Amino acid sequence: MKKFINDTVLVEEQMILGMVKAYPRHLKKLDCGNVVVRAEKKEGKVALISGGGSGHEPAHGGFVGTGMLDAAVAGPVFTSPTPDQIYEGIKAVATDAGVLMIVKNYTGDVMNFEMAAEMAEMEGITVKHVVTNDDVAVKDSLYTIGRRGVAGTVFVHKIAGAMAETGADLDKVQATAQKVIDNVRTMGAAIEPCTVPAAGKPGFTLSDDEMEIGIGIHGEPGTHREPVKKADEIVDMLLSQILEDIDYSGSEVAVMINGAGGTPLMELYIINNRVSDVLAEKGIRIHKTFVGEYMTSIEMQGFSISLLRLDDEMKQLLDAAADTPAWN
Amino acid sequence: MKKFINDTVLVEEQMILGMVKAYPRHLKKLDCGNVVVRAEKKEGKVALISGGGSGHEPAHGGFVGTGMLDAAVAGPVFTSPTPDQIYEGIKAVATDAGVLMIVKNYTGDVMNFEMAAEMAEMEGITVKHVVTNDDVAVKDSLYTIGRRGVAGTVFVHKIAGAMAETGADLDKVQATAQKVIDNVRTMGAAIEPCTVPAAGKPGFTLSDDEMEIGIGIHGEPGTHREPVKKADEIVDMLLSQILEDIDYSGSEVAVMINGAGGTPLMELYIINNRVSDVLAEKGIRIHKTFVGEYMTSIEMQGFSISLLRLDDEMKQLLDAAADTPAWN
Repeated sequence: MKKFINDTVLVEEQMILGMVKAYPRHLKKLDCGNVVVRAEKKEGKVALISGGGSGHEPAHGGFVGTGMLDAAVAGPVFTSPTPDQIYEGIKAVATDAGVLMIVKNYTGDVMNFEMAAEMAEMEGITVKHVVTNDDVAVKDSLYTIGRRGVAGTVFVHKIAGAMAETGADLDKVQATAQKVIDNVRTMGAAIEPCTVPAAGKPGFTLSDDEMEIGIGIHGEPGTHREPVKKADEIVDMLLSQILEDIDYSGSEVAVMINGAGGTPLMELYIINNRVSDVLAEKGIRIHKTFVGEYMTSIEMQGFSISLLRLDDEMKQLLDAAADTPAWN
Repeated sequence: MKKFINDTVLVEEQMILGMVKAYPRHLKKLDCGNVVVRAEKKEGKVALISGGGSGHEPAHGGFVGTGMLDAAVAGPVFTSPTPDQIYEGIKAVATDAGVLMIVKNYTGDVMNFEMAAEMAEMEGITVKHVVTNDDVAVKDSLYTIGRRGVAGTVFVHKIAGAMAETGADLDKVQATAQKVIDNVRTMGAAIEPCTVPAAGKPGFTLSDDEMEIGIGIHGEPGTHREPVKKADEIVDMLLSQILEDIDYSGSEVAVMINGAGGTPLMELYIINNRVSDVLAEKGIRIHKTFVGEYMTSIEMQGFSISLLRLDDEMKQLLDAAADTPAWN
């Protein structure tokens, strides 16, 4: 295993420290663990908190800041943070307006965030949550009952975060987050695996001409493997499965072409070239496109496509200014 | 070779098309080649143009927009664009205030940009240029007489671009660009190579425990190879060579931790953790830190550290708002 790290047991902490040192205007780290919160607490608004295993950078710490999250809790790589750690994050950012937790649908995350919420409720903090499950590839998976939460989660951070910033109450912010979840779908593929530092070897292997379609953000299996095809053919395959789940015809959408960590922007742009053409052919209007790394899988070579159906309110919230390290 | 592409001969064009389709508010592509210009031409200001071989995305097209570049010319992967192509870019964005070319110091680029400038001058367009050469690793290289231009070039785009936006004249914009060049130094390292699509195999090989110190952005040789060390030791090695070239003690600097394309953000943050600590120890104050992909080498696994010494004017220009796909 070749990586720019110091020690496998220090990866998460040194990563969070390095992130906070890069963005002191936006972020600070709690003393009690790998929890990143806004440098200045914003009182009077609903606080948004997300998190999960590390390895998905810039998610979620990179989305902490004005107009998005108030806190992000980072567990070990690909492993849920503990309830205690999440509870510390909730306590640090909770306001009288309450707390909304945005949880990706993995069994460990859902359980630990719910336990943390119960701990917080006993302290008189009002906590609600939503569970993101945008990945259309598989119904159940290694770590999940139901669909997995993947890159579409970042649209939830952005749009619910913008709603919270308007001073909306907890029910309204939760409903807004849920509206995003109801309208976003994602599917991905990968050609090279990633290596969890503590494991020291790739989480799976692919032969020289093979790709995994529908892969999860931890490298967990998708729908199937097959020989690598042209980028346009892969895009067509992923889009057709997304469009089978939600018929976006006639809608206006936001598009996210998310790199898995090791995929060059060159390839993500080539992918977007086809996505853009196919949506145009199908009469799906593109409001805005995001190409880059939003929800990665360490250095995996892969990508995902997310489509989010927008109404006027969601467009306005998506376009609202945000000031975080990783959203632009 | 596994890549998300369609055809090795279509890589550059489909990439540029996909980029422009992602950011139609910012960018348009000229019909005559892989030249990206601002969606709306800005009259009355000095026009900034840069470019070079493809494979360094988001450089340079991702930096076209308000407050940075007016045009970016993309040659084949790792190959200079032709004088004709650069000339078309100049013509498309030239204003009465003149044109400044920002050229990375590679023999082909410098020659072709200069020839394009001569063609434009014959049409009555005033063109000046600066040559970036921030890489302290090697004095001369495979493709260069003198030091190579690498990630520090993006600081030139930002600061000279902000100066141009104020309405400053061509001499002032050129002098500002040169001031950045005089004060920025960079050095990088890599643990895995990249593959030029048309070549079909990696440009170099490293053994399982080996890294290349001082590597160029085309994978060209640096100072030496040695066994991979801890991230902190690699940082110390790179920083000490940078600080030997310019003594930044007592200065205020901007820091760029630039990913080479395949390096996960996790590792870039770990690298920044050390960079930040070492600069603090040495009494070098950090005005702002940038961590991400600015000047890549396709999917190479590597990074570079750039330090830019700032004065008050440069700080203000660096902090000025910019609206481009890739700067945030």
